[in-house]
Formats: sequence, C-alpha cells, structure tokens
Amino acid sequence: MDILARHVDTPPTSRSLRNSGGPAEVPRVVIVGAGFGGLEAAKALARAPVRLTIVDRLNHHCFQPLLYQVATGTLSPADIAWPVRSILSRQRNAEILMAEVTGVDLCDHAVLLSEGRRIAYDYLVLATGAAHSYFGHEEWAPSAPGLKRIEDATEIRRRLLLAFERAELADDDAERRRLMTFVVVGGGPTGVEMAGAIADMARLTLARDFRHIDPRNARIVLIEAGPWLLSAFPRPLSGYAQRALQSMGVEVWTSTHVVGMDARGVSTAQGGGIDAATVVWAAGVTASPAAAWISAAADGAGRIKVLPDLSIPGHPEIFAIGDTALALGPGDQPAPGLAAAAKQMGRYVGRVIAARVQSRAAPPVFRYRHLGDLATIGRKRAAVSFGRLRLTGFIAWVFWSVAHIYFLIGVRNRVVVALNWIWEYLTLQRGARLIVCPRS
Amino acid sequence: MDILARHVDTPPTSRSLRNSGGPAEVPRVVIVGAGFGGLEAAKALARAPVRLTIVDRLNHHCFQPLLYQVATGTLSPADIAWPVRSILSRQRNAEILMAEVTGVDLCDHAVLLSEGRRIAYDYLVLATGAAHSYFGHEEWAPSAPGLKRIEDATEIRRRLLLAFERAELADDDAERRRLMTFVVVGGGPTGVEMAGAIADMARLTLARDFRHIDPRNARIVLIEAGPWLLSAFPRPLSGYAQRALQSMGVEVWTSTHVVGMDARGVSTAQGGGIDAATVVWAAGVTASPAAAWISAAADGAGRIKVLPDLSIPGHPEIFAIGDTALALGPGDQPAPGLAAAAKQMGRYVGRVIAARVQSRAAPPVFRYRHLGDLATIGRKRAAVSFGRLRLTGFIAWVFWSVAHIYFLIGVRNRVVVALNWIWEYLTLQRGARLIVCPRS
Repeated sequence: MDILARHVDTPPTSRSLRNSGGPAEVPRVVIVGAGFGGLEAAKALARAPVRLTIVDRLNHHCFQPLLYQVATGTLSPADIAWPVRSILSRQRNAEILMAEVTGVDLCDHAVLLSEGRRIAYDYLVLATGAAHSYFGHEEWAPSAPGLKRIEDATEIRRRLLLAFERAELADDDAERRRLMTFVVVGGGPTGVEMAGAIADMARLTLARDFRHIDPRNARIVLIEAGPWLLSAFPRPLSGYAQRALQSMGVEVWTSTHVVGMDARGVSTAQGGGIDAATVVWAAGVTASPAAAWISAAADGAGRIKVLPDLSIPGHPEIFAIGDTALALGPGDQPAPGLAAAAKQMGRYVGRVIAARVQSRAAPPVFRYRHLGDLATIGRKRAAVSFGRLRLTGFIAWVFWSVAHIYFLIGVRNRVVVALNWIWEYLTLQRGARLIVCPRS
Repeated sequence: MDILARHVDTPPTSRSLRNSGGPAEVPRVVIVGAGFGGLEAAKALARAPVRLTIVDRLNHHCFQPLLYQVATGTLSPADIAWPVRSILSRQRNAEILMAEVTGVDLCDHAVLLSEGRRIAYDYLVLATGAAHSYFGHEEWAPSAPGLKRIEDATEIRRRLLLAFERAELADDDAERRRLMTFVVVGGGPTGVEMAGAIADMARLTLARDFRHIDPRNARIVLIEAGPWLLSAFPRPLSGYAQRALQSMGVEVWTSTHVVGMDARGVSTAQGGGIDAATVVWAAGVTASPAAAWISAAADGAGRIKVLPDLSIPGHPEIFAIGDTALALGPGDQPAPGLAAAAKQMGRYVGRVIAARVQSRAAPPVFRYRHLGDLATIGRKRAAVSFGRLRLTGFIAWVFWSVAHIYFLIGVRNRVVVALNWIWEYLTLQRGARLIVCPRS
C-alpha cells in the first residue's frame, strides 16, 4: 500500500541499477535535504526516468540568506519559506517525505528513518546542510542563538524585541545598559547584515515607541576574530562595510576573539568583557552528521571529502553536495558555503545521475564557478562583488534587492517581500515585530 | 528614574483624584489588556488630561476574528497582529508596559505586576479578555487547542499540516483514516469558519501535493451541542451555513455533546466516537481571572457583574469591559463576546473617565448596540446579518471581506491581507503553510 512498505518489500536494490527496463525497474533516487542543493538536484532530474524521493525533517524550504530579516522583524517566516510539496507539486516523478533520517545502510542501499522505517535507493544524494558550530563551546549555544532555521530567526526576534521591553521596565541604570547592548559574533555577511539591521531597528523603527528609554542609544558591537569584516570579499569592500557600520553607530571589533559567554554577556581576549543581554552567533558552521552516516572521511568542519564528480570514494552511487561536501576547486580551494555553490552542485549531481541512468556520458568533473559576494549594510547600503563589478552604497543595495527578489522561490513571495521592503523603506516601520513564545 | 519607581514613590493615589491641578497631579489611568476594548479606551482618552498606562503580557494586539486564517495557513501571524507600541506611538499621554499582572491592591490603588512591581492608578480599566473553557474538562486542553492567541493558531496550523504529512507516511489504513479526520468542537462563528477553512485546505490547496493519500478524502466533522450552528444568527442563516458546509463535504453534527477526548479522538453522547488525530476547540470561553483580583461578583463564565456605567459595585474608579464584563443590555441580555461589543465598551469607559477627570457630566449609561453577525464558510461564501440586511453566498463573502479589511489596524496589514486573499482566491494556494516547532 505504502511507499515505505513497497520499498522494503523489493529485493536488494543494486540490481535495478543494472536492469533498468520496465516501469517496476525504474531506478530510485533519494535526496536527503530540501535546501538549495537538494531542490536543485531534484529539478535537474525532472525529466529523468527515475523515482525520486526527497526526505526532509521540515515541511518547508527556507531561503536562508533572508533569515536575518525575519530575525529583525522586516519579513514574516512565510515570506521566505515555502512548502517543499508545493515547490515540487507538478514534478510527477518526485515524492516528498517529511521524516528524520537517522543513518544509511550502505550494504542494503537504504536510508534509515526514525521509527525503524527504511527507504531503498539506487542513487543517494546527501544535501543535509550545516548547523552552527561554537568551536567546542556548545555551552554558549543558549546565550547566543545562531541563524539557520525559521525557529532560530523567531527566537532571535523575540530576544531583540524583549530586550527593549525589559529595558523600558528596568529600575537600574546598569541593567538598562546591559539590556540595550547587542553583540553579534562573526563578521561574515550574516554578522554584518544582522548588526546593520539591529542598528536600523533601534535607530529608526523603535525610535519613538518608548517613553523611558531611547532605543537610539542602543549599543551594538560586531566582533570578528580576523582582521577584516567580510573576509571573502575584495579588501576595499571590507573596508567600506566597516566604515558604513561605524557611521550607523555600530562598534566594530576586528581581530578580537570571544573567549567566554554566559547570560550576562561576552568576554573577549583582546577587548575585555561586554555586558550584553542579547548575543547573536554568526561565526561558525559545521556540516550535518551525514559523514558519520556513511563513515566517510570529513574535514574539521564535518564536510565529506568527495571525488571530482561529487561522489563518495568507494560509493559511486552516493553523492554529497552543498554545505555537506568538501568540493575542492582550482588551487585546492573548497567551494564556499553559499547558496550558489549548493545549487551548482545540486544541478551537476542531478545531471550525473540522469546521464548514468540513461547510459549517457556523464558531464565532466564539477567545477565551482564563483558568481560573486553580496551583503547589505542597513536599509539602503550594500557591498557587492560580482565578476569584475564592485559596487557599494545605494546602487549596491538596489542590486542586492533585485538579485534576492529574483532568487526567491514563488511568484507570491517575490511580490510580498518586495512590498515589505518598499513599505519599510518608505515608513521605517517593520511589519513583523511579534514576540511569540513557544507554547509552554 | 523609572515609571514604576515613580509610581511607588507617590503618596496614595485617591488624593490626586481630588486635586487634579498641576502637571504632577495629572490623574493616572491604567488599562490592563490591549485587546479591542483596551485599545479603544486608550484612544478615547487621547486628548484627556491623564497619564495613561496600558499593560499587556504580549507586545502585540491580535485581530482575533482572523486567527482561523493563520491556523489554516492563509495569513502569517504578523498580518493580523500589530505591536501595541506602534499603534499608540503618537499618543503622547500613553505608555505601554509589557508585563504580567498578578493582582490589584484595592486599598492602595495599585496594580500588582510580577516580580513585586506595582503601578499606582486613579482609574483602572480591566480589559483582560477571555480564555478557552473546557467546561470543567481541563484535561481535554492538550488534545484540542482553542484559538485565542497567535501561538494557538500556529500550533493548530502545525497539527493540521502534520496530520497530512503523517498520513502520507502511514502504513496502516485505520491510522491513515484517523490522521485524515479533523474534528471541530463548537458551531459558533469560529467553529464554522475553521471547519470551512480546513475543508478548503484539504480539497483545494493540498489536493495535488501528496502521492500516497488524497487530501480530498479528509473527513471533517463539526460538532455543536445546540440544535443550530451560528445560534446567535437569524435561523435562516444557521440553516444556510449548515447546508453550505455539507456541500463542501463537512459532516455537521448538531445536538451532540462531547463527553470524552484524548489523543485518539473524541467521544460523544449521541453520535458515538470519532477516531481523529486533530481536534480544534471552538466551544467555550471563560473570562480571565480579573474578577478574582478585585474580589468582584462574577457569573459562571467569570465575567464581572458591572453597573450600568460599567464600573464595579463599590469601586467607581474601576471599570470592566469586553469579555471581562457582564454588561446587561435591554431585556437583561448580556452584550455578546464580540470585538464590536468590546470596542463600544472601551469607547464608553474612555469617555466616562475623560468626563470625570474634567468634572464634566458623564455620558448616560452604557447601551450595547448590536451591529450584526458575520461568518465565512470556506473561501467564497459567508452568512451576514447586518441590521435588517441578510446576506448569504458570494455577496456575503465580499461584504465580510470588506468589513474585515476595514477593521484591520494599520494600512500595511490591510494591503497585505487583501493581497493574500486575492492570491488564494485566484491560485488556491496558501502563503503560510509552515510547520514550525517550538524550540526544544
């Protein structure tokens, strides 16, 4: 009756790889993860004679580059997340399972799900993404949530807004200052965008809403361990980002290492301590445990070392893509943890599988093509490096906005997000300033 | 330094009532609750020489009549909720405190907040609203969430969508049927709207998104203890609502009492049991514990028995409004638990206080004026009773839509909600189909 039962009932799967003839023998492709890479792989297989199963823990694909706008109240979660089922609703060879993967049975070619379920595969694509890494200090996690999922964003939004509410109520000057101090750890695009958005929220959106505090006096500190913000960008853009943030009142602490963190605040090796009620983690990521599922070799960040065709050494039927994979490009530089890289890998692996299934020549080895780097700084500035193009300021912000609107999935989301941005640009108001608590 | 400290420092408050002269002696009005009633009272006091404090546990005002659309994935939480601070940002005599009220000190004229804080008042307005009532069966609450707050709506949305996901995965026919059975308890406007929206979601939005189940086969049962749906409406509209729901495939069980409920389903006195994974409670409400704070006489539903000017017997400086109050109208009929009634009471009490503070004649006794009743049935039908007007079908739905858009707070929300409705009407898609779990 049911897909899982059917999968389990069938004989061991590698056979169907060889005899792909009748409809019962259609090869089965399982993609774990419906992020940028997984979805792109699924779409690349839309016309291939395969039975495709996409497994994800969540029912939605999240457009992570805009999560910081949910965390700072500009967008609603549903503006940047879309049910995986709707995205692939018309792709008749694809089915979606919302389930938790617990491992892979390499001998039997089956993905193991919670509650003892299994899905057989002929080809397996691991596109499970990354999570926050606290560099061995997992005890920092409760004090400094990161920004990977919708729930992270609404939790950060809750903390940011609640800090101002509590400051309004505070009896004590030191406590009020602590509540109005916000620390962002990590000076990559996420950290820069968060710090800028918090500054705008405090200086513009909330400016007139309180009676006992002036949100414009909020202190915002951006801490980066390296010497530059946006270290992947060309140097002049890093310098621009730093000056732009400083002009918005953000303190930028480069070459500063966080050495301690608790509910009171943050302590650093170089700059001393900061009493801060709200800390956002934008510093490190680590790959999901997919490497452990298949006992594959991984780098320090948990990324699986893949072959030039993105397959796993010794397992030509298994691929890893996106943040799960360590795909070395020219000069042994790994492809970066960007949406664009994940999408390129997904598309490539989809084509490799389609070619193999149809006994056509597989495409040449995967080559990551770097399109560019973009980061916004507040509500009307950005830094853009795109090919040879270098843009800063308002024109860069327009470029950034158009690019992000273009890449959003779904016509409706594009329209809603564009309207939200125009609204905030004109009125300084944010549409999604809700403090919502998890049900107790 | 701080408002609370200042309040506590001042001498007992009734004095300032009598000597309202200099700016230090401006009377203090405290409104507990920023729902329809509380906000309306605050606005009615905008030009009065008072210092106004609005206390609410939450930072946002929620437009409860549209909560069911959040619960069924049409709207995002932020589309129907608005920060109280923004709403009153320009009213300079008003301040907002986000805090939990724990009681009232009647002798000292102070509202007690958690953590031992107090706010002195000269006039106090209790506008604390209502919560679900399970008629003494509080053990039903985990199985059947009600629909009063944003968190309730996202929890119900999570359960509805997850039921289909689990049905897609189910091995067993009986379990699949149980997962695809949805029970709504209570045939008032909320229950009718929920049942219709669930039917539309199953039959239209989700129809093509699954591969192993057909969401159109979902079973939806609406249970009402009385003989009619929409019992407050004129009879012909009740009959229309029942027929309209039945034509959408909803089973309507009137004159049926729920006698038991657990994680497996619902049992009724008349109709036997229903195996159902998802139950929504739309049957009973009870007033908040405000009556206990002031030891006032209350009816069975916890509503405070107020005098004709909505003040509390023996306490002319304390008022109760909205769902907190039992305000008897002509024929000893209490004003219903509708937004319109709460707003009328709020406006009236604001005027009474403004008159007393300025030693003007207070307005005559409060009279509830019933404007009408409205309920939607699915995506293009409604039942409307407005004055002598009786509307059903599409024209009623247009009337309902325009009325609700009109009453939404904030220009932006009106536009976003209107666009969402047009979008869903045209495409059958819903924009906010997210399953979001509370952080563990």
